[in-house]
Amino acid sequence: MNRYPPNDVRSLRIVVINSIMPPEGEQDELAWAQAERARALRIGLLEAGYNIIAVFPADLHLPDRVAQLQPDMIIIDAESDARDVLEHVVIATQGAPRPIVLFTEDHDKSSMEAAMAAGVSAYIVAGLQSERIKPVLDVALARFNVDQKLRTELSDTKLKLAERKTIDRAKGLLMERHKMTEDEAYQKLRRLAMDKNLKLSDVAQRILDAAELLG
Amino acid sequence: MNRYPPNDVRSLRIVVINSIMPPEGEQDELAWAQAERARALRIGLLEAGYNIIAVFPADLHLPDRVAQLQPDMIIIDAESDARDVLEHVVIATQGAPRPIVLFTEDHDKSSMEAAMAAGVSAYIVAGLQSERIKPVLDVALARFNVDQKLRTELSDTKLKLAERKTIDRAKGLLMERHKMTEDEAYQKLRRLAMDKNLKLSDVAQRILDAAELLG
Repeated sequence: MNRYPPNDVRSLRIVVINSIMPPEGEQDELAWAQAERARALRIGLLEAGYNIIAVFPADLHLPDRVAQLQPDMIIIDAESDARDVLEHVVIATQGAPRPIVLFTEDHDKSSMEAAMAAGVSAYIVAGLQSERIKPVLDVALARFNVDQKLRTELSDTKLKLAERKTIDRAKGLLMERHKMTEDEAYQKLRRLAMDKNLKLSDVAQRILDAAELLG
Repeated sequence: MNRYPPNDVRSLRIVVINSIMPPEGEQDELAWAQAERARALRIGLLEAGYNIIAVFPADLHLPDRVAQLQPDMIIIDAESDARDVLEHVVIATQGAPRPIVLFTEDHDKSSMEAAMAAGVSAYIVAGLQSERIKPVLDVALARFNVDQKLRTELSDTKLKLAERKTIDRAKGLLMERHKMTEDEAYQKLRRLAMDKNLKLSDVAQRILDAAELLG
């Protein structure tokens, strides 16, 4: 697994996901304010020395683009549609998680919790002064690293538990059917695993599958 | 386990840990600036409607005070000694984790990661405008809830794995010594657990202990 951040934070390759377009007319003040805020965020990032390698909306091409660009961090700049955009980004980064920073106007508590559960490293409501951008992104990277460690530990432990169940079931089957001691059953599994160049749990699963097929 | 936040965030009972004292003389400009910042944070919290139930430094009385007050959130307002203060607070809340929000001037990356690993829900460098306090605390609460879920799931899974190892070792022992099938050994363990009103894994551990003692 890659570890974040790289030595120099400012060499971070950042992708900004942004669906905010400056409006056509001059009437829509809210839309203009949103577009202005989005522009200010990008200026702030650039002024702080960050490397924005691409800006694109959360459309059908998102997964391909992320896979192709392999950014070090994804910044989502969303107004009220943060939840939908985030969902797309999470799906697009499932195979290779990345730090996700979310700028939004959505201060609904259930949206916040959903975002954290989806793995967002920073959730920032209502913009940011440009001089605070660097510490916020640094904190997001630190959060991402610690979070990944915790999630990896959890999935490793779950896998170990599942593998252990499989191995123990196979061992029990050998002990019962072939009147082996526990140690003999374990040694047999190990020998089979070595002979077939498989993991112990894979051999165990094959034995269980075979027993089920043959009855 | 308690779930945060309570229905009304503004009923949150907050403790502020703060060792910043206004300096005696008028010469020390930095110390005055720090004291002013600490004061501004507290004013911001009060203006936003939060309930500060106590302010005290991170001294020897900290664990007792936290245990006695049972705050819903702990805000650490520290300058450069954030790391030490945090350590004390984490020890003081070990038995009953609470959302911890850290305001600090320490933007060292290793301090940030250490803080995240210690369970800090929000790490805010260089102060905060008062109108942004509420979203920041809301995000911290959401983070705390999701984090606790993840950590609880991890410790539950680790416990299950450890219990399973114990049970399987006891089962194997019964199968070997008493020529039982796997199912018979399992049924015996279950019966013993019911008779003695113990968990399966506790009975298993007793059997292993006894076998070790009796050889």
